[in-house]
Amino acid sequence: MSSADPASSACPFCSDGIADAAFHADAQFLALHNIAPILPGHSLVIPRRHVARLFDLPDAEFAAMMLFARGAARVLGRAFAADGFDWTIQDGAAAGQTVPHLHLHVIPRHGGDLPDPGDWYPALIASEDAQIDSRTRPRLSPAEHARITARLRGVAERS
Amino acid sequence: MSSADPASSACPFCSDGIADAAFHADAQFLALHNIAPILPGHSLVIPRRHVARLFDLPDAEFAAMMLFARGAARVLGRAFAADGFDWTIQDGAAAGQTVPHLHLHVIPRHGGDLPDPGDWYPALIASEDAQIDSRTRPRLSPAEHARITARLRGVAERS
Repeated sequence: MSSADPASSACPFCSDGIADAAFHADAQFLALHNIAPILPGHSLVIPRRHVARLFDLPDAEFAAMMLFARGAARVLGRAFAADGFDWTIQDGAAAGQTVPHLHLHVIPRHGGDLPDPGDWYPALIASEDAQIDSRTRPRLSPAEHARITARLRGVAERS
Repeated sequence: MSSADPASSACPFCSDGIADAAFHADAQFLALHNIAPILPGHSLVIPRRHVARLFDLPDAEFAAMMLFARGAARVLGRAFAADGFDWTIQDGAAAGQTVPHLHLHVIPRHGGDLPDPGDWYPALIASEDAQIDSRTRPRLSPAEHARITARLRGVAERS
């Protein structure tokens, strides 16, 4: 199928109820706290519609996605008192993209949260390579994920 | 100084003549091929004015930067026949930012260019941690950098 085709049932970012798990949403985009975060606040920004690649979005929609992501980062920054953020898009399998639905990682950071500031990406790769629910990639419990999401929604509503 | 102050002479992205090294430019932004790339085509997108952090840019300017970056990525994609791209912003020292002038890395990728697709980031960190001109971080010769830049400008002009 083309990379802009409608959702397939195999895409985890097109699953029923995905919007209910978002802490920040508009008509086009969702921001979701990762269910297996590498650091507290590690979130994903995705288009609601199924597009695989960055150049599948027209200019206006891409610009809107990045502004939406900045809104999500503001919420995360307030909720987690972040000192900074890592932003990354892996566009294409050759670039390390594992889920073929365009997604931007936004990771709040704090001085000293990892042994070296650059350690976030090896942690991300190790996480993506690991089976979820394995010892190396524990999943937040549904209750914990819901608690974090509710807290972030509260921050978003007050801002 | 505040993070939006004018250029200081210490900032490598504010040096005299930096715009002459760009392969893609508009009134606000520059795209430059890295002088010590981790892979061919590894480039940086920067605002011309000195801002340190992502939230130092107003919304419209941030959106414009991301659209400018997509234009630069199109040029790189054509010039290097890329299969994909890694995009990353390290926003703040806690997030791994080493040069305190906002910059987005755009890295064209090809299947099999590194042992694992995710190896780009450790290579980036190792490069940023290394002294330029050392054995582990060779610099392109000025002639080679100029040759690549001229080739990219040619691709940009034809597109």
